[in-house]
Amino acid sequence: MTTDDNDTDIRLCRTFQTAPAAVPKDDSAKYLTSGLEADGFQAPDWLVPDLEDGTAPDMKAEGLENTIEQVPRYEFPGEIWPRVEWSYEDGTYREKGREQIDRLASAIGDEIEGVVVPKVGRLEDVRRAAEAVAEAEREHGYPDGSIGLSIIVETGRARSDLREIAKFGEDSRLTALVFGPVDYTAELGGRDLGDGRPRWDGLLEALSNEASAAGLLSIGGPFDDLFKERAGLTYYNAEEYADQIEHEARLGLDGSWSLYPKQTIQANTIHMPTPDELERDVHKIERFNEAKREGTGAVTIDGQMVDEATFKNFVNTVRTVRAIDERRPDQTGDYYDDELLERALELELSYA
Amino acid sequence: MTTDDNDTDIRLCRTFQTAPAAVPKDDSAKYLTSGLEADGFQAPDWLVPDLEDGTAPDMKAEGLENTIEQVPRYEFPGEIWPRVEWSYEDGTYREKGREQIDRLASAIGDEIEGVVVPKVGRLEDVRRAAEAVAEAEREHGYPDGSIGLSIIVETGRARSDLREIAKFGEDSRLTALVFGPVDYTAELGGRDLGDGRPRWDGLLEALSNEASAAGLLSIGGPFDDLFKERAGLTYYNAEEYADQIEHEARLGLDGSWSLYPKQTIQANTIHMPTPDELERDVHKIERFNEAKREGTGAVTIDGQMVDEATFKNFVNTVRTVRAIDERRPDQTGDYYDDELLERALELELSYA
Amino acid sequence: MTTDDNDTDIRLCRTFQTAPAAVPKDDSAKYLTSGLEADGFQAPDWLVPDLEDGTAPDMKAEGLENTIEQVPRYEFPGEIWPRVEWSYEDGTYREKGREQIDRLASAIGDEIEGVVVPKVGRLEDVRRAAEAVAEAEREHGYPDGSIGLSIIVETGRARSDLREIAKFGEDSRLTALVFGPVDYTAELGGRDLGDGRPRWDGLLEALSNEASAAGLLSIGGPFDDLFKERAGLTYYNAEEYADQIEHEARLGLDGSWSLYPKQTIQANTIHMPTPDELERDVHKIERFNEAKREGTGAVTIDGQMVDEATFKNFVNTVRTVRAIDERRPDQTGDYYDDELLERALELELSYA
Repeated sequence: MTTDDNDTDIRLCRTFQTAPAAVPKDDSAKYLTSGLEADGFQAPDWLVPDLEDGTAPDMKAEGLENTIEQVPRYEFPGEIWPRVEWSYEDGTYREKGREQIDRLASAIGDEIEGVVVPKVGRLEDVRRAAEAVAEAEREHGYPDGSIGLSIIVETGRARSDLREIAKFGEDSRLTALVFGPVDYTAELGGRDLGDGRPRWDGLLEALSNEASAAGLLSIGGPFDDLFKERAGLTYYNAEEYADQIEHEARLGLDGSWSLYPKQTIQANTIHMPTPDELERDVHKIERFNEAKREGTGAVTIDGQMVDEATFKNFVNTVRTVRAIDERRPDQTGDYYDDELLERALELELSYA
Repeated sequence: MTTDDNDTDIRLCRTFQTAPAAVPKDDSAKYLTSGLEADGFQAPDWLVPDLEDGTAPDMKAEGLENTIEQVPRYEFPGEIWPRVEWSYEDGTYREKGREQIDRLASAIGDEIEGVVVPKVGRLEDVRRAAEAVAEAEREHGYPDGSIGLSIIVETGRARSDLREIAKFGEDSRLTALVFGPVDYTAELGGRDLGDGRPRWDGLLEALSNEASAAGLLSIGGPFDDLFKERAGLTYYNAEEYADQIEHEARLGLDGSWSLYPKQTIQANTIHMPTPDELERDVHKIERFNEAKREGTGAVTIDGQMVDEATFKNFVNTVRTVRAIDERRPDQTGDYYDDELLERALELELSYA
Repeated sequence: MTTDDNDTDIRLCRTFQTAPAAVPKDDSAKYLTSGLEADGFQAPDWLVPDLEDGTAPDMKAEGLENTIEQVPRYEFPGEIWPRVEWSYEDGTYREKGREQIDRLASAIGDEIEGVVVPKVGRLEDVRRAAEAVAEAEREHGYPDGSIGLSIIVETGRARSDLREIAKFGEDSRLTALVFGPVDYTAELGGRDLGDGRPRWDGLLEALSNEASAAGLLSIGGPFDDLFKERAGLTYYNAEEYADQIEHEARLGLDGSWSLYPKQTIQANTIHMPTPDELERDVHKIERFNEAKREGTGAVTIDGQMVDEATFKNFVNTVRTVRAIDERRPDQTGDYYDDELLERALELELSYA
């Protein structure tokens, strides 16, 4: 989690939804515009027009033009982060990436929060990607740092250098570390023996830690088993996606990848405190505030020993709700009952 | 585990019990003196008078005086390690910590083994904490290194620098790396979705490894769900605490945090080899010694392929029992039957 | 996994089978020659004549002579990698290791692919081991780099420096990182509370990652509970060994340690794609190739969203089968039905 003293400083990225920037349909921007138009829980916090693996090689130019044309036409409520091409091991992809970044900065530099660069390698390669963004900024007259950079961690090299990459990110335009499990599993030669890819728990824990230590966001990877089939019926795989997102939420990842509007609904929801969680933590804050007024440092509330460290966890819950409420009051209004939401918004959180 | 060639070099910290140094009761030192008086399995290996989160802000001065006054009045059988205030991100807490360290060194420098410093950040901050102890030592005429330092690993930064911090610890007063999961979870934004905080297994494994590589102790974090309620009855949560401690013991942590005398009984016990474990390993050592006399390098004992590497694990079991027996013969006498204990004490362990 | 653009560049080490180089039997080379003679699925990819823990101290000289005498007498189909003595903490073992390496290079330098060095410590110690091999090469006139080095990662120090060691390996004779869980558990003081040693999942994940990032092989550790007993019968523990090997395969380890011919059959088999896996991935490649011809970047196949990243995982499966087929056609012929194997061999894999 990346928080600051002020709720409004919490940067939301509960959902990182990629949409192919061009598909071979009559309306080649169909998925992109459907992402831009989404509302309520279907609207992702970050929409990622995908110029990389989601768009076929011979449609990438069209995908770039779609992005440039469509993004300014909508009042999208979240952030726009196009994903460009890149490769730590192949300079031709880096050249394409540089041109895409340049074109995006030139045409819609003030409509996007940054670009997402995939397949980065060791720290030097991440620096190189950051430099490509800096060049595009200078070239098109944007102030230094105004166009962000997020990277997909999906190579053995990027995982190996994760700590150093995140530390570099402390003082740079680097904004989010996003996991890319599919490429990552291919690089490591991981196997799916019929029960799915490994979860890579060590990596997820490190991603959450290094992002927190450096003030960056951490985002989980895509879940591609979109549909299941049983007894002749094909249906959306809601259970397994939710399991993955809950796992990521437990580990402190700020958000999750979505490939599909239904996934966006689920990830947006899971990365909000549940009503039970909010009720529980609001209650414990109220009780702990009373105890502090009586001069106690640690106190047992509902069987749990609570002190200032425990208190911080409860405060996280409330501050996350406040941050979402400020930007998506439709979602908090929908999800929590009025009385609970009001208690959460009015609660005294400082423990000084 | 931190061992040396000699059993008496095994430093015991099966239990790291914190006790608030002052509470708003008639006898404000109640919990502290109850820790100092504990005996048998209720006596922790390390008692930690807590001047930080366990003691309310306006009682910290009183907690410091309680510590200075009470500690010398008891013949506590283990080590005394007061926890002071600190913060990698707030100099005012570091200033308070420096004053507390200075006062402790001045008043009871020869009664304490060291101080516990919480909320450290990256390596530089740990160096700063070590320097604060060194200053207090010099100021009050103690030999260099006579007052130890243990740190709570509970920030993303400390986890990120754990390897470097432990390497620094090889040649310094650093003694133990203690996990602080509550603050840590708050820093990372981890969630409790109703089934508790994450266990942070990657961190625990790293803590055990880096401590071993640098000759330090590694200690697990507190378990705060002290009590459960069912069908109208509130009762001590013995099961879940024991599960956590067994998990920590498997991973090679030297000891566990205790918040409560019953937890101390359980952690002291779990961090002793069980009678079955001791019987099994004594038996295998006896059998392997026979095999070696016949000139074999590896041999199958009870279905297990045993060689010198396996042997070392059995030796760990026996040496741990010997170290505890030397310092807490009441506990080994209580826990093992006489004949087994005698075999463990008399067994030939060198395999030269 | 360590792959290159060409199937024939995939270095196979599905099985790392150690065999004591000398045992106190009439034929002291019995286990060694039985490894050298093995065929079919019983033949390991790597055979490791063991001069270290598997051979008793007073038989090591005889083990060395057995190795020198027996290895050249067989047309072993895989690679030969003797394990010598070493210790990061004891120079006398390093001296013995140097002498063993020298003698092996002198007598059978062109019959072995390299040597396995156990109990290495931090990076400096690995450099020291690499230098010992370089010296033996020079002394006996072998070209630089012709004798490889693989190390057993089994100390806290080697785990702590794993990233740096692997990076050193990128430009050196270092070939494989092999896990040694028994010594490792002893170093960390891990406990077997009746349900076995910890799996050390964090280490396994790091081993797979760092090996991939540096182009090295990663190999799992031995499983020593060879036999189980129930109702009076002692029988080979096939289930638990297979569970461990499948776990290692999922995480992308290239191979597994074997202590026993039956283990070699199982590890060779598990580190080949299963027939179901091969059928599934061949099918998805065929379907994805069609989709690409229609100009799509991502497509849903059997409920799974497939793009170029997913595709790489399927390609891994096929390329592994091809590499095994090239070197062990008896094994692929045995394991897959002819029609499936043919589809796998003829499939178009490039997605340019």
